Amino acid sequence: MSLLRTRPVATPAMIATFDDAATIAAALAFEAALACAQAAEGVIAADSAEAIAAAAGRLAPDPAELAEAAALAGTLAIPLVAQLRATLSGEAAAALHRGATSQDIADTVLMMQVRQAATLLLADAARVTDALAPLARRHAATAAIGRTLLQDAQPIGFGLRIAHWHAGIAAAAARLSREVAAGAVLQWGGAAGTRPGQHGAAAAVARRLAQALGLADAPPWHARRDGVAAIAAALGILIGALAKMARDIALLAQNGVGEAHEPAVAGRGGSSAMAHKRNPTGCQTALSAAVRAPGLVAAILTAMPAEEERGIGGWQTEGPVLVDLFLLAAGAAKAMGTVAEGLDIDTQAIARNLAVAGQGADIGDSVALVEALLAPGRD
Amino acid sequence: MSLLRTRPVATPAMIATFDDAATIAAALAFEAALACAQAAEGVIAADSAEAIAAAAGRLAPDPAELAEAAALAGTLAIPLVAQLRATLSGEAAAALHRGATSQDIADTVLMMQVRQAATLLLADAARVTDALAPLARRHAATAAIGRTLLQDAQPIGFGLRIAHWHAGIAAAAARLSREVAAGAVLQWGGAAGTRPGQHGAAAAVARRLAQALGLADAPPWHARRDGVAAIAAALGILIGALAKMARDIALLAQNGVGEAHEPAVAGRGGSSAMAHKRNPTGCQTALSAAVRAPGLVAAILTAMPAEEERGIGGWQTEGPVLVDLFLLAAGAAKAMGTVAEGLDIDTQAIARNLAVAGQGADIGDSVALVEALLAPGRD
Amino acid sequence: MSLLRTRPVATPAMIATFDDAATIAAALAFEAALACAQAAEGVIAADSAEAIAAAAGRLAPDPAELAEAAALAGTLAIPLVAQLRATLSGEAAAALHRGATSQDIADTVLMMQVRQAATLLLADAARVTDALAPLARRHAATAAIGRTLLQDAQPIGFGLRIAHWHAGIAAAAARLSREVAAGAVLQWGGAAGTRPGQHGAAAAVARRLAQALGLADAPPWHARRDGVAAIAAALGILIGALAKMARDIALLAQNGVGEAHEPAVAGRGGSSAMAHKRNPTGCQTALSAAVRAPGLVAAILTAMPAEEERGIGGWQTEGPVLVDLFLLAAGAAKAMGTVAEGLDIDTQAIARNLAVAGQGADIGDSVALVEALLAPGRD
Amino acid sequence: MSLLRTRPVATPAMIATFDDAATIAAALAFEAALACAQAAEGVIAADSAEAIAAAAGRLAPDPAELAEAAALAGTLAIPLVAQLRATLSGEAAAALHRGATSQDIADTVLMMQVRQAATLLLADAARVTDALAPLARRHAATAAIGRTLLQDAQPIGFGLRIAHWHAGIAAAAARLSREVAAGAVLQWGGAAGTRPGQHGAAAAVARRLAQALGLADAPPWHARRDGVAAIAAALGILIGALAKMARDIALLAQNGVGEAHEPAVAGRGGSSAMAHKRNPTGCQTALSAAVRAPGLVAAILTAMPAEEERGIGGWQTEGPVLVDLFLLAAGAAKAMGTVAEGLDIDTQAIARNLAVAGQGADIGDSVALVEALLAPGRD
Repeated sequence: MSLLRTRPVATPAMIATFDDAATIAAALAFEAALACAQAAEGVIAADSAEAIAAAAGRLAPDPAELAEAAALAGTLAIPLVAQLRATLSGEAAAALHRGATSQDIADTVLMMQVRQAATLLLADAARVTDALAPLARRHAATAAIGRTLLQDAQPIGFGLRIAHWHAGIAAAAARLSREVAAGAVLQWGGAAGTRPGQHGAAAAVARRLAQALGLADAPPWHARRDGVAAIAAALGILIGALAKMARDIALLAQNGVGEAHEPAVAGRGGSSAMAHKRNPTGCQTALSAAVRAPGLVAAILTAMPAEEERGIGGWQTEGPVLVDLFLLAAGAAKAMGTVAEGLDIDTQAIARNLAVAGQGADIGDSVALVEALLAPGRD
Repeated sequence: MSLLRTRPVATPAMIATFDDAATIAAALAFEAALACAQAAEGVIAADSAEAIAAAAGRLAPDPAELAEAAALAGTLAIPLVAQLRATLSGEAAAALHRGATSQDIADTVLMMQVRQAATLLLADAARVTDALAPLARRHAATAAIGRTLLQDAQPIGFGLRIAHWHAGIAAAAARLSREVAAGAVLQWGGAAGTRPGQHGAAAAVARRLAQALGLADAPPWHARRDGVAAIAAALGILIGALAKMARDIALLAQNGVGEAHEPAVAGRGGSSAMAHKRNPTGCQTALSAAVRAPGLVAAILTAMPAEEERGIGGWQTEGPVLVDLFLLAAGAAKAMGTVAEGLDIDTQAIARNLAVAGQGADIGDSVALVEALLAPGRD
Repeated sequence: MSLLRTRPVATPAMIATFDDAATIAAALAFEAALACAQAAEGVIAADSAEAIAAAAGRLAPDPAELAEAAALAGTLAIPLVAQLRATLSGEAAAALHRGATSQDIADTVLMMQVRQAATLLLADAARVTDALAPLARRHAATAAIGRTLLQDAQPIGFGLRIAHWHAGIAAAAARLSREVAAGAVLQWGGAAGTRPGQHGAAAAVARRLAQALGLADAPPWHARRDGVAAIAAALGILIGALAKMARDIALLAQNGVGEAHEPAVAGRGGSSAMAHKRNPTGCQTALSAAVRAPGLVAAILTAMPAEEERGIGGWQTEGPVLVDLFLLAAGAAKAMGTVAEGLDIDTQAIARNLAVAGQGADIGDSVALVEALLAPGRD
Repeated sequence: MSLLRTRPVATPAMIATFDDAATIAAALAFEAALACAQAAEGVIAADSAEAIAAAAGRLAPDPAELAEAAALAGTLAIPLVAQLRATLSGEAAAALHRGATSQDIADTVLMMQVRQAATLLLADAARVTDALAPLARRHAATAAIGRTLLQDAQPIGFGLRIAHWHAGIAAAAARLSREVAAGAVLQWGGAAGTRPGQHGAAAAVARRLAQALGLADAPPWHARRDGVAAIAAALGILIGALAKMARDIALLAQNGVGEAHEPAVAGRGGSSAMAHKRNPTGCQTALSAAVRAPGLVAAILTAMPAEEERGIGGWQTEGPVLVDLFLLAAGAAKAMGTVAEGLDIDTQAIARNLAVAGQGADIGDSVALVEALLAPGRD
């Protein structure tokens, strides 16, 4: 629970998306929406649903106490539903959480947060690509030495390198968008995934519930986790694409190279020991995220072979790990957005390094390739 | 180089797809196709291309010697191109490998193999889903106890569990197909990715080259690796989906449960110490693949932030790791295909366990959910 | 920053060990101890050291503001040292943080926390093994069916399985203790690791600094990270050993097996949908930790090849990832301590399952092996 | 089964250590040694043991056929023992493999190979450190610019950087040696780990068996895998330490830096497209190993929570994954040995870069720190 260790790798907005207040609010929204959907289909009484929705709107549990109770119970839903039920009586108390189980809340809440998080993240990724496209075009024909295995190789258009950053990030963002659309869907199945006790109205209740929560309707997926895994993998790939850009800029900013630098930001990138330094801290953020992300994706893949109707150990890991991936992706995208918008390209250094390399200035098909890489819709 | 450690986790066809003979043949095909494409566009002389194609068709290098030379050179292409060039003379020798680099061969050959491998794998995955669909329907209304956290929970339709296996594998197969179509494309960029020395015909040569090799045309992606990463992730997810089915069957086959068993196959699943045992070795194959796959996917994600025009360390890992993923996926899919086709479901045991659980027999919306999960086109 | 997602997998004591208050207190202790050590060796004036120590004792920064500033600066030390310096003047202000750099604070603070965390964790691990040893002896000769590949195999002494849990956890705890002793040492090197500006007293200052902070003295290790990696790996192995015990108990607790159960704890292991269930939530905690830990260890291994005197991206990941490993290990050890102390072994079920298996009751050398596994000092 | 993809990352000696011939020979040695040990303790007849040992010495199975049969059976031991038994008759045939199971062979054979592999690897690691120590001392006082976050920081003794490489590799080698001594021990437990049917002589048979095979005696560890995990982690850390050195040298060899280069080796480090290039292919080998190793270590950690007396999926992954780690470590150590022995340090470039950095030439305590890092026995 260290803000000091979380904040530097994430963004305030992304932290807020997944914080305890947001989680509790979404969980209560689930209970209210379920009751309303069931009332609309005649599964529970209308006034029970009204009472439940009102109670859910009023309940303000203490996150620390709730966390303690959830740790004991093994799930957030048990103490939260108990608290909510304690404010109800009679039929409404009995109608609460009808045909739902803890995992329904956990998964659906997570997916509500995932949709919001993806929107934030894709906006930050778009900020990066929006800034890179004109840079790539401007420098498409700027002859620069290309480097392979960290050695001077042959000339390239400097903008070709930038266009590759753009293409990689754009493709990864498109994949994330696709996988979130496919996988961040309603989870509602009840204790064993059969939606019991709905008097034949299960599918209709599900449709209403999904709509109320802003999610796509879908059969339950309590123990079928490819959707979550695909979202995690897409996040890992996006982080990798951002870190590719970061790696290049950190290398280009080296003394003795000096072809590009992160923008100078007041208070940013200093050293506690060396006042003269201008550290590539935006790149550091993205590169650090790329060191952590692969293991997080691996954890979610490891969780896939869940035991029967609800796994033991596996699915419980997905929530915190997916949140970590979004936090890291947000931090990386925001950092690279700032870098992209203020990237300081030194064409004199580029020309000097090219001359030293002594490989001429034939940049081949660079200009056409820049356009091909930036073409809209290629992803 | 241990067949004893590779064969049990893979299939002969998949091993052959990536073996040294296939790799060498594809590399020679690349050189021949490049020369022909360049001749067709006037970049090199027609008779040079003919000589190169003929020489490539004749060359039969010794894999062990080539591997030794490749280990020294740091890449397969250097000794292979040198051997090929030694059989040519004059203009043809000079025209060979024009505007190409080692990574072009490595990546394009890998992608030719990936396309073939994906075809094999998707056929095996389809065999699994083809066998599961009728089973799911047949047992859609067979009341069985559902289990969560390895404890009896509430009744389900036994076929609902099977329909989830189907849906998970089908979705993962569709994702793999999509990512292979998008990512397994031509890599041709030359030393630094600019396609130099093509006299304005670079794009046209690329189109011809791609077509000749059965790949989609695309800008080079030498240091932009999201396509490879996405294929790797899709393989990891498919393995996870197969292992989910395997986990359930291994649990169902336990003594004291006995609801389903792998088919008895002569010579399969015995014990060197216990003649009475019938081990779930098909499930073991898939579960074992699922232990290894997440770390392999992580390695490929780790490789993404490649240094400038060709990374040092990262991209060199992708080939062997991607091959391992295909081998493991093939072994898992084949094993689960055999399991699915012969799955031995014991309805008496199912009924007995349900009765002992004492949770009634209300299977909720199971039957409709089975149909929803099996609906064509939902992935 | 979600307590709801952190608390269920950790312990309050471990969360407190790494929380922001503890981190800030340790960072201030570092600055005070460095100044005192330098004064004792004549590197700075005695009254400067007194002023620094007094100021460090008084400073009470707001964690949220500090986190925001640290996120901007790229490191905690920059804003914290600046705040501290602002409360000093003249020579004392100039003497503060002499010959130190941000990473010195980050690494040394982390290692101070690691030592405290390891003490907590090893106590919880000892609680598990202390509870297991008598259980293993009591049931050493209790014939039970052994199971391989989830199938009945041959009889074992039930206590032999428990003795293996004991041996695995004890060996892992001993390894962790060893690696913490070796690796959780002082980091102090200054900007580039040379301990500059100490007038020949660098080694003596280091000795005093280490002693004041309760750490072993050592040369700096700013870009040599095997010690951190070994601690991380030892944590991963301990989590794996705890999860082995959890896996077995979760399997033994299945309906149809019933040989052992987690103790019933009020409020624990219920279901929001099924009042009758007694979920193995202690086992779930350990198993879930074991799904997450391998990827975290992988991240720290990935960070090892740091660039020159301070890496970009790699070392910045170690702190939060190592903290996550300690949190998960603490949660797993605590959970399994409770399970071990209250483990409910059903000898009737054991006998019944053995009889059904029909493999006789020859438990071979089980009793002697139990003693061999429990022998003190074998790890 | 691609030599082209394995050889460049490994060494011939390490490949041979784990190849099929070595595996089969070790498996047959196990059966012979077990029979002899049992005969010496009166468990089986002396002439049965002689017949078994003779038959094991004669058997020469075809690896490809055996691999096929092992793939079907799910384990190598089943077809191998069957082949061996087919050459025996009567009492000898019945006495073969007495009280042993497939996993005993798999694990013990693996550990015999691990001991041999560790000896090879530690020799290669010693070659690296032996070459680095004098280099570190020679350049201890050579002022060079230190670099943090890839930016010029403050001066260091150039040899201090080298001494850190030495210390990291030496510590990692010492850890590997320790973990192999502790964990690469005899596995013999029989079907469920009780060493059944030994007439009270189980411990004595185990002692003899271990001695004959050159392994330490130990209780069985069929489902207690911390020893394997610790060996894997130690390999991962060693690879990381080698890659740290490789990362630095690759950065130092950059154009515009030029402070150190890999030795020129005939046929090594060329480019198929650029005759002028001298690629750091030794560094590439080590860096590539470090991208793959973390995920392999993660897989072995993931396998730890094995099910009861023999896991399903987990332990079956350990063999191939541990072999991969040894292959990669061998390739990395050999490559860095060659690099260390021929490292080409350019003191003029070092001086020039230092002057450009404009940070003076105060190298602090570098010289003393070099000696501290090289001190024998510090690991």
